[in-house]
Amino acid sequence: MAVPTRFTEQLGVEHPVVLAPMDYVADARLARAVSRAGGLGLLGGGYGDRDWLLRELGGLDLAAEGVGCGFITWSLASQPHLLDIVLERQPKAVFLSFGDPAPFVERIHAAGVPVICQVGNLEHARHALEVGADVLVAQGGEGGGHGVGTRSTLTLVPEIADLIVDRGSDALLLAAGGIADARGVAAVLALGADGAVVGTRFLVSEEAAISAEAQARALLLSGDDTVRQSVYDIVRGKDWPAVYSGRVLNNEFVAQWHGREGALTEQIGEVRALFTTAVEVRDFDTANLIVGEAVGLIRSVESVESIVRSLTRFTSGRVAEVRS
Amino acid sequence: MAVPTRFTEQLGVEHPVVLAPMDYVADARLARAVSRAGGLGLLGGGYGDRDWLLRELGGLDLAAEGVGCGFITWSLASQPHLLDIVLERQPKAVFLSFGDPAPFVERIHAAGVPVICQVGNLEHARHALEVGADVLVAQGGEGGGHGVGTRSTLTLVPEIADLIVDRGSDALLLAAGGIADARGVAAVLALGADGAVVGTRFLVSEEAAISAEAQARALLLSGDDTVRQSVYDIVRGKDWPAVYSGRVLNNEFVAQWHGREGALTEQIGEVRALFTTAVEVRDFDTANLIVGEAVGLIRSVESVESIVRSLTRFTSGRVAEVRS
Ligand SMILES: Cc1cc2nc3c(=O)[nH]c(=O)nc-3n(C[C@H](O)[C@H](O)[C@H](O)COP(=O)(O)O)c2cc1C
Ligand SMILES: Cc1cc2nc3c(=O)[nH]c(=O)nc-3n(C[C@H](O)[C@H](O)[C@H](O)COP(=O)(O)O)c2cc1C
Repeated sequence: MAVPTRFTEQLGVEHPVVLAPMDYVADARLARAVSRAGGLGLLGGGYGDRDWLLRELGGLDLAAEGVGCGFITWSLASQPHLLDIVLERQPKAVFLSFGDPAPFVERIHAAGVPVICQVGNLEHARHALEVGADVLVAQGGEGGGHGVGTRSTLTLVPEIADLIVDRGSDALLLAAGGIADARGVAAVLALGADGAVVGTRFLVSEEAAISAEAQARALLLSGDDTVRQSVYDIVRGKDWPAVYSGRVLNNEFVAQWHGREGALTEQIGEVRALFTTAVEVRDFDTANLIVGEAVGLIRSVESVESIVRSLTRFTSGRVAEVRS
Repeated sequence: MAVPTRFTEQLGVEHPVVLAPMDYVADARLARAVSRAGGLGLLGGGYGDRDWLLRELGGLDLAAEGVGCGFITWSLASQPHLLDIVLERQPKAVFLSFGDPAPFVERIHAAGVPVICQVGNLEHARHALEVGADVLVAQGGEGGGHGVGTRSTLTLVPEIADLIVDRGSDALLLAAGGIADARGVAAVLALGADGAVVGTRFLVSEEAAISAEAQARALLLSGDDTVRQSVYDIVRGKDWPAVYSGRVLNNEFVAQWHGREGALTEQIGEVRALFTTAVEVRDFDTANLIVGEAVGLIRSVESVESIVRSLTRFTSGRVAEVRS
């Protein structure tokens, strides 16, 4: 059932559910499906792969479908023209994570597009407010993929909600990290969020751009099987600022190298060859499977439509209203 | 306003709010105050200090006041007679955390007392169900003090809720970690918990057995200022199993030694002397201040009565009911 929030009203969507702009996984097909199901779909612009972006945009009318696009901010900084490619197509929103959004906010606003900034602590939240973010995403360390990872969604959402009030700001607030069903959506709305950003649950959808093998493995996992690490950044040669780590399946590869990053760097040529092969043959004991703790709540691959329904399946339209 | 849950009904309390059995901090005065305010008060039996326990029990009628007692399980194992001291006074419940509850469950049940087991992952949850726990507490790593710390409350509560259903068990479920106001209580009820265990918020109450200096420092903190570590276990000579770490204020002492545990052990005599002095003079740049991420939501020292009211201040008696 539809749960109206400030976010659904201001963005003009039916449900307070946003597809996390998962690098490659959130392609045109997945993003369109989420917007059609009444949420906000976002393309996973990720590190910024121009060919991928143009291909996905070729088959997707951002404006007509009400789809936005996300970027990894520190990576976008070295190829800012990618933002123009997106902005000239009138995206529903631009979602910036991991890095300083300041250089981009003015251009996005000039295009009449709202800026959503994903943050993982109070320092980043304060900065995003200062540079003019329209929507903050409080991202807890339980989430899949990269993030600051030192805070949990349960405490970060209300602490940032209080910050927004203290600053007299009218920015909206979304929660990300650990939300995979209606219990999670209801919880973050009770915490003061205006909506939920969902990654891992949509990764295990029929429309996700990911292999059946990856999804089959994900269905077997508990949240206990995930861990935050940086070894996959090293082996993939991704130059992440030290403040970020990523939550993934805690597999044999992670068990071998996590905490032994120096040794990994020394043997990088050899290990990278093994990793590359593992990715090709979809061997997730070695290849990276990016999932959050909420993977333990997922029991089947479902269509996006069915997932959006399950995320908003409240018995009443009213979620806990709390005076605090 | 009263929010009835299975927990309030089965335990016969007014509010689904439980005082965390914080070592020393949860003394007779604090535990009694929480039970009188309509929650479930628990003495912080902690590592098991016989003199402290007898003194607190001297001024507190557990049965009449509806107060229970908590123990650190691995420590209780070396002085199991402490359990008898408590059981013969008919506590409202016995709360066991951190270690194998199996050796104690039968004796507690024989006394007609419910067993509450705090767990931090699925493995511990499964074991607690198998040995007969009446109530599980899903403890997320955002909480203050010790725990497994690898899971967050937001994902652990629903995953354990599903486990309880899958097992066909009628055990109750509480959530611990990160709950400091009604937003947090509403959130964990939406996630499927029957109530909330609250530590840090009660540590900053008028009735808590802790110094005004510690509370004054706590009021200044964001959740960002906390961290999980083990250096205080080393300096205090507490022999914690490796699976547990503790969340505390991320102060100068932690900055100096966290990640350098080997060096700390080598210089333990000298460092311990500095630590002991710091505890005496309440210098929390060096002494440990045990608080969780939710410390960032606390803005004043309040009475227990006012805190219990603020934890249950819903605008309606209905919290999100979710079908999942
Ligand atoms: C496979 C995967 C890839 C991700 N890639 C990105 C990304 O490229 N950019 C980004 O901002 N966030 C990325 N994230 C993080 C999400 O934005 C979001 O914070 C997270 O998925 C929320 O937690 P959840 O996975 O528990 O739903 C990714 C997450 C996953 C699971
Ligand atoms: C000062 C302090 C001492 C604690 N001591 C204990 C203890 O002795 N035994 C125990 O089971 N848990 C202990 N805990 C953990 C609590 O049981 C509970 O999991 C935690 O406080 C919940 O998170 P919160 O602090 O965010 O409310 C302690 C917590 C704090 C803050």
